Amino acid sequence: MEGRQTGKIGSSRPTRTRRIERTKRDYPQKTFKKSYSKAAEGKVRIIPIGGVEEIGRNMTVVEYGDDIVVVDAGLQFPEEETPGIDFIIPNTKYLEAKKDKIRGMIISHGHLDHVGAIPYLIDKLGNPTIYATKLTKAIILKRQEEFPHGPKLDVQEITSESRIKMGKSLAAKFFDITHTIPDAIGTVIETPLGNVIYPGDFKIELDAKGNPENIEPYVNLGKEKNLVLLMESTNVEMPGFSMSEKTVRENLERIFTAAKGRIIVGTFSSQIERIIEMLKIAESLGRKVFIDGYSMKTNIEIAKELKLFVPKKDTLASIDRIDDYPPEKVLAICTGAQGEKNASMMRIANKKHKYIKIRPDDTIILSSSIIPGNEKSIQNLKDNLARQGARIIHNKMEDIHASGHAYSEELKMMIKMIKPKFFIPVHGHYFMLKTNADLAESTGIPKENIVTPMANGIIIETDGEKIQPTKETVPANYVMVDGLGVGDVQEVVLRDRQMLSQDGIFVIITVIDAQSGKVRNSPDIISRGFIYLRESQDILKQTRYLIKKTVEEATGKMHPVNIDYVKTLLRERIAKFLFQKTKRRPMVLPVLIEV
Amino acid sequence: MEGRQTGKIGSSRPTRTRRIERTKRDYPQKTFKKSYSKAAEGKVRIIPIGGVEEIGRNMTVVEYGDDIVVVDAGLQFPEEETPGIDFIIPNTKYLEAKKDKIRGMIISHGHLDHVGAIPYLIDKLGNPTIYATKLTKAIILKRQEEFPHGPKLDVQEITSESRIKMGKSLAAKFFDITHTIPDAIGTVIETPLGNVIYPGDFKIELDAKGNPENIEPYVNLGKEKNLVLLMESTNVEMPGFSMSEKTVRENLERIFTAAKGRIIVGTFSSQIERIIEMLKIAESLGRKVFIDGYSMKTNIEIAKELKLFVPKKDTLASIDRIDDYPPEKVLAICTGAQGEKNASMMRIANKKHKYIKIRPDDTIILSSSIIPGNEKSIQNLKDNLARQGARIIHNKMEDIHASGHAYSEELKMMIKMIKPKFFIPVHGHYFMLKTNADLAESTGIPKENIVTPMANGIIIETDGEKIQPTKETVPANYVMVDGLGVGDVQEVVLRDRQMLSQDGIFVIITVIDAQSGKVRNSPDIISRGFIYLRESQDILKQTRYLIKKTVEEATGKMHPVNIDYVKTLLRERIAKFLFQKTKRRPMVLPVLIEV
Repeated sequence: MEGRQTGKIGSSRPTRTRRIERTKRDYPQKTFKKSYSKAAEGKVRIIPIGGVEEIGRNMTVVEYGDDIVVVDAGLQFPEEETPGIDFIIPNTKYLEAKKDKIRGMIISHGHLDHVGAIPYLIDKLGNPTIYATKLTKAIILKRQEEFPHGPKLDVQEITSESRIKMGKSLAAKFFDITHTIPDAIGTVIETPLGNVIYPGDFKIELDAKGNPENIEPYVNLGKEKNLVLLMESTNVEMPGFSMSEKTVRENLERIFTAAKGRIIVGTFSSQIERIIEMLKIAESLGRKVFIDGYSMKTNIEIAKELKLFVPKKDTLASIDRIDDYPPEKVLAICTGAQGEKNASMMRIANKKHKYIKIRPDDTIILSSSIIPGNEKSIQNLKDNLARQGARIIHNKMEDIHASGHAYSEELKMMIKMIKPKFFIPVHGHYFMLKTNADLAESTGIPKENIVTPMANGIIIETDGEKIQPTKETVPANYVMVDGLGVGDVQEVVLRDRQMLSQDGIFVIITVIDAQSGKVRNSPDIISRGFIYLRESQDILKQTRYLIKKTVEEATGKMHPVNIDYVKTLLRERIAKFLFQKTKRRPMVLPVLIEV
Repeated sequence: MEGRQTGKIGSSRPTRTRRIERTKRDYPQKTFKKSYSKAAEGKVRIIPIGGVEEIGRNMTVVEYGDDIVVVDAGLQFPEEETPGIDFIIPNTKYLEAKKDKIRGMIISHGHLDHVGAIPYLIDKLGNPTIYATKLTKAIILKRQEEFPHGPKLDVQEITSESRIKMGKSLAAKFFDITHTIPDAIGTVIETPLGNVIYPGDFKIELDAKGNPENIEPYVNLGKEKNLVLLMESTNVEMPGFSMSEKTVRENLERIFTAAKGRIIVGTFSSQIERIIEMLKIAESLGRKVFIDGYSMKTNIEIAKELKLFVPKKDTLASIDRIDDYPPEKVLAICTGAQGEKNASMMRIANKKHKYIKIRPDDTIILSSSIIPGNEKSIQNLKDNLARQGARIIHNKMEDIHASGHAYSEELKMMIKMIKPKFFIPVHGHYFMLKTNADLAESTGIPKENIVTPMANGIIIETDGEKIQPTKETVPANYVMVDGLGVGDVQEVVLRDRQMLSQDGIFVIITVIDAQSGKVRNSPDIISRGFIYLRESQDILKQTRYLIKKTVEEATGKMHPVNIDYVKTLLRERIAKFLFQKTKRRPMVLPVLIEV
């Protein structure tokens, strides 16, 4: 191994890169403005509320006069810097202040970074009408069922043929887009100054001859007056074209055909297109399909209900019957390709799955990429499956996973087809947005027509001639969902969690006689995550002695006892003592009780 | 984004994949055997003590009769499952019990996963003689300086010409190996049954015609009686050949030549070969070189002292003089390409560097790969540098980093040249070891001559005809270094840290009148990492009421008061109440004080 030798050679305490690094966007701002300016007369206002400077929690506001359209309401998954948090969602303060102007919320597709925040914020926005295609609508409604206290949603179904009037001055129409989930749509918001176009997440597939497929909608759209293109940046750093999903299908078909025993696939339940393809291959090979994992089953159920595919009568069978069929007739499709602890694949790997025990002739296919942060879990998954002797095929070994996000050449192609006057890069970290801006410039869009630097919460305005951020910004910091709390976790709570996870906590409870200032009995000590108490009797004994000494020296000269002073003194002395003894810094909390 | 939709759709509490997953190898075993068997008469015993089932903390024992040779003593960096831990080192219980038989410790090269554990364990092994090449020796001694209480090391310098007698029946000789640090060596341990060969970390470079370079030592070695090859598995999953360091050099030279302004390179300080190459390019272009970062400066200093390169008089200058030279004459080489918090690159990115402020004409080169787990820090680094307008080139965009570990074709080549009778895959997670075993089989080594399954702590024995693990194992679990403590962090401490990092801690201090069982005053509450107290007065009030009620209902019927019973009751009730109110599960710790 190379590469880990930064920090002092052999320093006994390495640099901890994972402590919370405070950045201005990360935490709730203290100022809550009650009102915000209107879009300047005759100008289109665009506000990225989430999804820029990050991957996830996508939400964009388009505003003209008295009309507001919101596009997407996604969530972001927690990070190392947000321990214990469930989800991070967009900050909707601006929209809450203007909720009477919201004419609708458009959702581009059914992935959580586009629909996931709806249950947490829709009420605060006055429960506006949501516009979504058939599958997206079904996913939104299914999800809402898990929030029984939420409002009844008003979801209107749209297709690429729809055109919806949005208040006095705006309207929305839609176009079909290729992504990894069916029914994904791009949105065109018609404004008096021209179209604001948001393709959402997309990729462009090439046919066998290398020609792009299904691009008519973009080419046709290119003939209109296109004011702004808001384009995703997820894969802008990847050169060329993304792998075709057709290649993935062909490779899966080849592997399925060659497999002698059972086939067990782990993939994302959100990859509905690919799952449907696998079902079709299984049917052609006469394999029964067993679906396992809650989200996987739910998604298949929805896809079946909506007739996105119509399985033959005998294709699907219940997982508890998997052993009733010969191995060469079995395909199991499972959740947990990222090594998620309780998901189906991990239970199989850990021999805790009720119905699937690995056999040496099983072929396990991990048809997914590695989401950064999951490397270790996936390694564990592969190791534990390999220990049981199965053959494992993952995406580094064969082309069995393709991204659903356009690579740089596809992105360029989209810009050239849409021919927008202005360009705003969205969905990505700053460096990715900047790379996307450079890419747009390389296609011929003048630098001054590209919005950069981008940041969540900036207000971009255009009069049709120029585009630029105003001096005003709107709140766009993280809103954290933690259990029932939405937005109530403060920075200090996260910092404490981070600190506690490093060296634990050390609570000292001391009872003092109010009269004499003497310590009564032996001080109580509670230590968690610091040292193992049973093996640290010596340190404990010395600590108790130091507590008593410190308190009594202080209180001896003091009438009445200044509790706060003694506490501070105690905290400092004990923290110093423990550090000397252990080179660890637990959180030291003294409690003094006068009786 | 796709792919995060496992777990219930919209479950309000996502699966937490990062909690500690207990595996048998992770934590200190409770049994400490005082004695272990001898190697069976006439058999060679090989024990991988660390470095298999993981990347890092490499250590292997070779034993014959009364003689033991230890190869490498590396450390492993902490993981998410080991919060707050500094390093993880090999368990040396077996060697401690047999320390009088240790004839020497051989160190293959100067990277921390091969030398890093020496200061923590050398004393326990009876401070045996360490054999290392010139640079490796210098690195070991430099590092030892930071452990002033450690013993004086006995390091003997070796070269590929050396042959060292190791006790009665063993001897060691060495061969040159290509890695990313100079002076890396492979080791041949001569036993009565044949050679045990450990190349350590290596790669094979190809020349312009595609022919392997510097392979004479392996070819010559192939003519001897080679019993066992212990071969690394780091990159066994990568097809073909690794990128040549020459390609990296050429690309760096091209980028350096084209750069108009300053060049700022972030790389691993352990990449000593490449750093020397960059210095040479800078000299040829007339650029001054400014080295920044403690480990980088230390390594350059050592390389200069050992005359691994001889810089021209004016090449190197002190970082505080960087502004004295025109931008086109400046090359800065910095630590922190992984986004480590206090390293040089990160200070530059965060505008906290004393001497380097980014200018728009700067070219920043991140000549490194992404170590899993550092994705987010590196993204931050790139984002913050890009915000300041510098041009950034990283290894996804251009070939400016090559791995120092052989890819599958290089590994095959090594096996074919060495022609060992037996094969043991080392350095890697289980799946990688298994893949390496399959690779060895594909070169023609019979399956029964390959040791698999591999695990840390297995005792492998061979009589020259057969090779297999014995039924005995030696302790090989994680030994964790945390501050001054080595091996004293127990599983329970780590579990507590993990729990504390999720929902924090909630301490209740209640004073009870021993006579009446009544609660005196209002109970004290200490909450950290749970909820923000200032904004949670309601919950606190209700909690205090519930505490008082719970205690007094219990104590009312109780004489004398059963403190443990009341505590348990209190813990349960308050935890349940807090969960109902918040859907969070802080660690609840009740303290009852009778007065």
